[in-house]
Amino acid sequence: MAEPLAPDGPDLVAVFNAHRGGFERTLGLVFTQITPDELACEVAIAPHLLQPYGLVHGGVYSAIVETLASAGAALYAMGQGRTSVGLENTTSFVRGARGGKLIAKATPVHRGRSSQVWEVAIHDDNGKLVATGRVRTVSLERGASIAGETVAVKT
Amino acid sequence: MAEPLAPDGPDLVAVFNAHRGGFERTLGLVFTQITPDELACEVAIAPHLLQPYGLVHGGVYSAIVETLASAGAALYAMGQGRTSVGLENTTSFVRGARGGKLIAKATPVHRGRSSQVWEVAIHDDNGKLVATGRVRTVSLERGASIAGETVAVKT
Amino acid sequence: MAEPLAPDGPDLVAVFNAHRGGFERTLGLVFTQITPDELACEVAIAPHLLQPYGLVHGGVYSAIVETLASAGAALYAMGQGRTSVGLENTTSFVRGARGGKLIAKATPVHRGRSSQVWEVAIHDDNGKLVATGRVRTVSLERGASIAGETVAVKT
Amino acid sequence: MAEPLAPDGPDLVAVFNAHRGGFERTLGLVFTQITPDELACEVAIAPHLLQPYGLVHGGVYSAIVETLASAGAALYAMGQGRTSVGLENTTSFVRGARGGKLIAKATPVHRGRSSQVWEVAIHDDNGKLVATGRVRTVSLERGASIAGETVAVKT
Repeated sequence: MAEPLAPDGPDLVAVFNAHRGGFERTLGLVFTQITPDELACEVAIAPHLLQPYGLVHGGVYSAIVETLASAGAALYAMGQGRTSVGLENTTSFVRGARGGKLIAKATPVHRGRSSQVWEVAIHDDNGKLVATGRVRTVSLERGASIAGETVAVKT
Repeated sequence: MAEPLAPDGPDLVAVFNAHRGGFERTLGLVFTQITPDELACEVAIAPHLLQPYGLVHGGVYSAIVETLASAGAALYAMGQGRTSVGLENTTSFVRGARGGKLIAKATPVHRGRSSQVWEVAIHDDNGKLVATGRVRTVSLERGASIAGETVAVKT
Repeated sequence: MAEPLAPDGPDLVAVFNAHRGGFERTLGLVFTQITPDELACEVAIAPHLLQPYGLVHGGVYSAIVETLASAGAALYAMGQGRTSVGLENTTSFVRGARGGKLIAKATPVHRGRSSQVWEVAIHDDNGKLVATGRVRTVSLERGASIAGETVAVKT
Repeated sequence: MAEPLAPDGPDLVAVFNAHRGGFERTLGLVFTQITPDELACEVAIAPHLLQPYGLVHGGVYSAIVETLASAGAALYAMGQGRTSVGLENTTSFVRGARGGKLIAKATPVHRGRSSQVWEVAIHDDNGKLVATGRVRTVSLERGASIAGETVAVKT
């Protein structure tokens, strides 16, 4: 992602979907809403996302939480000329899911200069909550991350 | 997984690898050690596990934590004729990784009758800690899970 | 607390305040609202709640989160003839506070038969978020806790 | 605490005990070991630390985790001329305690320039694990915290 995303670009959903990494694509995660105050995505449940008992793997929920919260935090940090790095992911599992679609929504709990907290709720397509999580990020100077990749990735 | 795994079988590593679900296979996760007190696995870093900046996606670490802790908790619960269900996954990200192999190890923090806590540390192949996490599980009567799938999956 | 609280009693706030334990009293925590779907309390900031730098100690926030979430979970579990036990407390610190009053509110994220998730937000008296947290509980048969205290307290 | 603690002072235990804040004193927390790689403390269980059922309040465990981890992180940050601020506290409750003494030990999971992760285990005086937790901190420039108190306390 050589070019920074434009936080107020004309079609942020398209931009974020175009810039998905390999893992977001592996999950089949599709962003459906990107605004500073709310982001949303969907994941179609498929066999490659299941654990041995035929339920969606808990790690899939954590990964959705991570993706959506990180996108929200990155969007805010960008507006400050900073880079956001995830520190902690806490995901609570509420209900199993076997099929259909997962629908996730992220909202900010706290957006500070040095750190952010985002919350993500994941529902099944019957509107039932299946998992919920939080991500804590730290924001670093963009210069710091340009100076050397390790600055951004080694906390 | 119709047949319960035998906790003292002759080659648990082979059994656990044979019973991996779709998502564990998607991750390329391979169990390398399965004992009651320590479980280990490896994941080769590949493009389909990366986020947009070329680093391993945080959700991959959470998913490895979830897989290994759940396997350990399931193994213990089986020995009690019970089924283990994951409740909470808390993963801390320490250092980014771009290539090579991830090596994870799970150890029990607490193995109670109704609940367990497992800890997982993930290192890169230079021996550096990249992430660490905890999973809290609840153990249910096996009968409960036979009676209806929702019992096991809806906490 | 020999007698179970009546979830639909005439003045739950008075009942919960009367049944506070030693630590809730040490905190100076006063319940101000008790309903199935929302509980609230207040804590006046005083010197005995501060860390060495003169800010409210992080443990005070975790303790408020724990108290309010546990009260909400207990209220719901009672209605099912069950006992609720806290398993995990995750608290995020957002902003320091030195004086005035802390105002906390708890809402349920998930109320299941065997497990609950409650969320607590703590604001200062300027309406700024200072901390937020989650508690995961497990609900046990009341008989289980009567049979022996260890059942209720050893998970 | 006008004067920074000297990380290699002759009797760090005495220094840390002398600098306890009001809340550490309220808990009756006494530091018993302070080294860069391991810190320990004790808390005598007393009525003012209990919840309504006569068990140690969960918030007491979170507070012990917070205190000991923060002390360890502060000690390391000092050595870098930085200030450490707690971001997240995750505490797992394992077993109830009603009397005797709590003995806690903190060890570093990760000590980076911008962030640290510390782990704390709390045992009762029979050597049984009663709770365990983690704290994530961010380290800020000391100048930042001198420039204005809000820098250090508002993340």
